[in-house]
Amino acid sequence: MTPVTADITQADELRLTLMGIDTLQQPIVFMHRNCHVCRSEGFNALARVQLTTSHGQIIATLNIVDDDRLLQPCQVGLSKSAWQLLQAREDEPVAVSHPPALDSLSYLRAKIYGHPLATEEMSAIVRDIASRRYSDMHLAAFITACVDQKLTTEEVIDLTRAMMQAGQRLDWQREQVMDKHCVGGLPGNRTTPIVVAIVAACGLVIPKTSSRAITSPAGTADTMETLTHVSLSLAQMKQVVEQEGGCLAWGGSVNLSPADDALIRVERALDIDSEGQLVASVLSKKLAAGSTHVLVDLPVGATAKMRDETMAAKVAGLMVAVGNALGMQVETIITDGSQPVGRGIGPALEAEDVLLVLQNHTNAPQDLRQRALDLAARLLEMGGVSAPGEGMAKAEETLVSGAAWRKFSAICEAQGGLKTPPKAPYSLPILASRSGLVTHINNRILARIAKFAGAPEDKAAGLRLATRLGEVVAEGDELFTIYSESPGELEYARNFLQAHSAPVVIEDEYV
Amino acid sequence: MTPVTADITQADELRLTLMGIDTLQQPIVFMHRNCHVCRSEGFNALARVQLTTSHGQIIATLNIVDDDRLLQPCQVGLSKSAWQLLQAREDEPVAVSHPPALDSLSYLRAKIYGHPLATEEMSAIVRDIASRRYSDMHLAAFITACVDQKLTTEEVIDLTRAMMQAGQRLDWQREQVMDKHCVGGLPGNRTTPIVVAIVAACGLVIPKTSSRAITSPAGTADTMETLTHVSLSLAQMKQVVEQEGGCLAWGGSVNLSPADDALIRVERALDIDSEGQLVASVLSKKLAAGSTHVLVDLPVGATAKMRDETMAAKVAGLMVAVGNALGMQVETIITDGSQPVGRGIGPALEAEDVLLVLQNHTNAPQDLRQRALDLAARLLEMGGVSAPGEGMAKAEETLVSGAAWRKFSAICEAQGGLKTPPKAPYSLPILASRSGLVTHINNRILARIAKFAGAPEDKAAGLRLATRLGEVVAEGDELFTIYSESPGELEYARNFLQAHSAPVVIEDEYV
Repeated sequence: MTPVTADITQADELRLTLMGIDTLQQPIVFMHRNCHVCRSEGFNALARVQLTTSHGQIIATLNIVDDDRLLQPCQVGLSKSAWQLLQAREDEPVAVSHPPALDSLSYLRAKIYGHPLATEEMSAIVRDIASRRYSDMHLAAFITACVDQKLTTEEVIDLTRAMMQAGQRLDWQREQVMDKHCVGGLPGNRTTPIVVAIVAACGLVIPKTSSRAITSPAGTADTMETLTHVSLSLAQMKQVVEQEGGCLAWGGSVNLSPADDALIRVERALDIDSEGQLVASVLSKKLAAGSTHVLVDLPVGATAKMRDETMAAKVAGLMVAVGNALGMQVETIITDGSQPVGRGIGPALEAEDVLLVLQNHTNAPQDLRQRALDLAARLLEMGGVSAPGEGMAKAEETLVSGAAWRKFSAICEAQGGLKTPPKAPYSLPILASRSGLVTHINNRILARIAKFAGAPEDKAAGLRLATRLGEVVAEGDELFTIYSESPGELEYARNFLQAHSAPVVIEDEYV
Repeated sequence: MTPVTADITQADELRLTLMGIDTLQQPIVFMHRNCHVCRSEGFNALARVQLTTSHGQIIATLNIVDDDRLLQPCQVGLSKSAWQLLQAREDEPVAVSHPPALDSLSYLRAKIYGHPLATEEMSAIVRDIASRRYSDMHLAAFITACVDQKLTTEEVIDLTRAMMQAGQRLDWQREQVMDKHCVGGLPGNRTTPIVVAIVAACGLVIPKTSSRAITSPAGTADTMETLTHVSLSLAQMKQVVEQEGGCLAWGGSVNLSPADDALIRVERALDIDSEGQLVASVLSKKLAAGSTHVLVDLPVGATAKMRDETMAAKVAGLMVAVGNALGMQVETIITDGSQPVGRGIGPALEAEDVLLVLQNHTNAPQDLRQRALDLAARLLEMGGVSAPGEGMAKAEETLVSGAAWRKFSAICEAQGGLKTPPKAPYSLPILASRSGLVTHINNRILARIAKFAGAPEDKAAGLRLATRLGEVVAEGDELFTIYSESPGELEYARNFLQAHSAPVVIEDEYV
């Protein structure tokens, strides 16, 4: 028989190239239909394939390219996420093969068929999720198989521990590390900077990392970015905490609970809220962040994540049980989620609210102030600074005395300097078309208007509410004002507003 | 306030282009990160977006492009499947928007949380799946929520009916239309051409449509393509059936049960076999094909889809119940799935086996002949040609007399002419390395060798078995021969063989 032909010996001569295609956390590999490896291995589009370089190995989903202008047959193109995951270099050699069978898929199948998972089985699944070996279909199947009663408390504990272990872990070398978390975004609910300032001013350690907005008009990191630097390295963060007892940094520079990032993206696409997954998501990140005492805020409202008190109470109970099992003291607080908190919606507009509260301005939004005090008071009691029932007085005193504002300024200075939030050059007031009582405020439509106006990318964009539920307005009164950094975006937000039902509903005062 | 800027008015000036990227049935749309619509609508990578042209509308998953060489900001690129689905034309205008909420997703969520679905809810889900409005994640969630006991028999009936109704339906204008189906590929199990020839020769109507191989080395359509034309239009199919009582066509030119195609792809990726989905998959296609009497072959074996008799019996019972509920007479037959059937594995090599049986050659593979006779006999009894218990004699007589071969030739002539299957120019015999008893044959490794040799794309490629379970071989005897159309592929198959455990196991004859 004739010996090996050229076709086959070229198998190890494939070269990597970055495709300039962003598929978020889903690693995609592009290969030409006429690539000899593609043909001989019998790879079809959407196959999972393994890529191996001299320094790394990933599993990615295959897209087949038919156009020589996009890719040559000897090239292997990578999406941005695949490129980063493989730490690839342009034109470096790569081998492409069928991926080894993932052992954890047999556990996933067992779970799909309703069998509870043992600790080690759950760990194996989470490890494979964290290292991106699961396709979106596998992730969707896992999430579906784990909704609600389908996870025992023991499984939620195992899931949480495994998610925490699958990523980086911080160690603050302290016996007591405070933290807070709010489940489900409520527009404007920017209590974190105030709470951290009060708690740190009282001597507790609270190294807070926050996220940027994903679907909302602002995350705490976006708001804090209008006031100081937030992209701190772990070393910088440690130095700030060492000096001030707290920080207000963006969490993205540390790789806490990477499995959670993958799961959250698919949960959002499926629009599924699984209580077990929610608890594991929150607590795995807190554990990985090295927190020992965590207060979880659960806002309840028709358009909030917690739709009613029953659901919130159930989640609260699971939070406490799982936290305790993993050696973390967790307390919960159920709050009102029926309307936005404060006045601003958007990074800089929310920062202004935060500053008004911290600086004890007479026109500071009282709802934001009160919520921040409630949370700070509980944390002071949890941390042993105040006796039970005495946290509120201590929190209020710390705020009113200016100690909280001084601590906040000091933290911002330590992070690189305190800045003034930018102001938007364009604005459009929206006026009441009639007189009457404000009976309903639609959080979701307000959030979308703020996004159409440019938030969170445009830091000054968003809106500022001039009214609240239960207030009486006259025709022509300002209801809210939209702010933007360009006239086009202002127009765009106005068009959206005109095409939708009113976000602020006014009805007759006396019926 | 300043009026609308140029950025915004360009919104309707996006133009379509074909990207030359194949993502199979998953429609993907590519947009530039700097596209004004992408920015203003706030589309992130992996978002689901709706595309609207003057003549059509689809929902697709978004990939973001950062490279001007791949796509301009004013262009909207489509994957092949998205292009076909939208029936797009190069450079035609397109509008891109957020897709409307799919009502059926609330039913999907209900099912995920364990609620049984009403008939209309199941229909709504299946309609959205059939029109490709579900992402792979939605499909994976649906499949996961429907495994095993999670579907009631009533739900399986609803699912089957909805899948049938979601696509094209054939009407043969006959009271009785026979059909057969084999669940789970067993290499070489090419009974269909023989069964159709016998049954049609006896006067029954059997308009058989078959699939091409997806993961196996040959489908019935691939094998038949080496003997005649199989890509028939519906009109051509009807003419052949009118004239000969049967056909042996490729089913891909008619759009039967499109929801099934989408579900099967994801089931394969998840490696999940759900009994309810399996029954709905098979029977929805048979109903849509206009069949009234269906015989289902269920091969049982360690490496077959039906792993044991219990599973096969359960599936068989569900097949019959669902078929009856939908007005179709379904019978099942449980067969041996422990080793390949016949000798050839690969399109042309299997066609040779079929011809040997039909032409009553003395060296025809007896196992293939017997299986085909068993199935034909049952169909003759189901169709009322033979009284119960007398089908076998009739089937055998039809085969032995040459009537079946004449009918087969006539069908092939009507489809465009009977051809001789191609022969492979390259071959490599694999010899026994020792003497002894053949105790095990690994179906999966044999199938992969045939694929590495080029099957099913290369019609003559594959392998021919020279031994069977329970035979005694001497050292140096031929076990099987690999065939290919190029020396490189032969080498490639040999390399694979050398790297894996022996597909034919020989042990001591007397232990």
